[in-house]
Amino acid sequence: MRISQLSAASGIPIPTIKYYLREGLLPQGEQTAVTRAEYGERHLRRLRLIRALLEVGRLPVASISKIIAAVEDEEMPVHQMLGTAHYALSSPMEPRPDDEEHRAARERVNGLIESMGWTVNPEAPTLDELAQILVRMDHLGMPATEQSLRYYAELLMRLVAEHEMEKIPFDGPRETAVESLVVGTVLYGKAFDVLRRLAQESESARLLGG
Amino acid sequence: MRISQLSAASGIPIPTIKYYLREGLLPQGEQTAVTRAEYGERHLRRLRLIRALLEVGRLPVASISKIIAAVEDEEMPVHQMLGTAHYALSSPMEPRPDDEEHRAARERVNGLIESMGWTVNPEAPTLDELAQILVRMDHLGMPATEQSLRYYAELLMRLVAEHEMEKIPFDGPRETAVESLVVGTVLYGKAFDVLRRLAQESESARLLGG
Repeated sequence: MRISQLSAASGIPIPTIKYYLREGLLPQGEQTAVTRAEYGERHLRRLRLIRALLEVGRLPVASISKIIAAVEDEEMPVHQMLGTAHYALSSPMEPRPDDEEHRAARERVNGLIESMGWTVNPEAPTLDELAQILVRMDHLGMPATEQSLRYYAELLMRLVAEHEMEKIPFDGPRETAVESLVVGTVLYGKAFDVLRRLAQESESARLLGG
Repeated sequence: MRISQLSAASGIPIPTIKYYLREGLLPQGEQTAVTRAEYGERHLRRLRLIRALLEVGRLPVASISKIIAAVEDEEMPVHQMLGTAHYALSSPMEPRPDDEEHRAARERVNGLIESMGWTVNPEAPTLDELAQILVRMDHLGMPATEQSLRYYAELLMRLVAEHEMEKIPFDGPRETAVESLVVGTVLYGKAFDVLRRLAQESESARLLGG
């Protein structure tokens, strides 16, 4: 298809598509004449992924370039490619504190991961993110207990293992696996948060007779 | 205690405390001389709540005023007071769409709430928030199935009923119940999200041998 058809099929304006081509986010079409290139399914799939990263993941173009590079590097194992996208989706960190309090919280996080038997890269930004949340709870005088954290972790592992991982199409095109990961992580994460608040409201009504 | 002692005990600077007094967020101290007022435990508790609403809930002062008014109105039932805080913590909504797509998604949300037997105010902003997420999933060609939503809802109700509601001290001062709700909703919500991503990483490593 021509660029005008690619635009119609994807719903993305031609100037935006040209911008993605210039930035190297979208591979060039097949040149069929000096001023004419042909695009295919592969380009449509890539545009879907870019849109998910931009609109759902709200990632800056620099992060998107890194993820696209991982998608295009066929030598990179799928787990590592998904990790690239996963880490980019982590909340922007406050500057990583290098103090005793943070180190102590990080130790608690490490202990939790170990006691759960989880395999997590020790450099994962998510570990520091969790440590920062624990520090804030301490500051507010409402520390999280080990028992609470275990309870949450067990529940979530059940969710992920029984229900979430099977939705990611590992065998299809690399783009589709990443797109599915982004939607699963961000939008299902939001749905989860909203459903938790709805459950809280309902349970509060039941307990307090509202 | 005097205002300087209240400042030392709460860690909040005197000018900030005076601002809260002017805005009516903090009740006046007991006037013991023309230029001297006495503050007590009640003021400390209130300052803790304001700090939680500002720093954890990231709420604007106008929302905080509304929540404080609900805390001070002893006639207002606890469930309604908590609801005031709970709704204020909802994500800022995109303008509520009034179209067929949103209405259809809202019908699906209503059906889910009904099938779960949950008691939720039909005006709750959380219901529209969930509907908007469903519309976005549809647009991305990855619609959420009823089965998935039920699975999530059941898991979360178990979490809330077994583990979360018991942490809110309903019998203590009204301030403390609201503070605990804010920390529980926001910080445990974040912890939940981070733990889910850690579980995903670990399960991806196990499945893909990363």
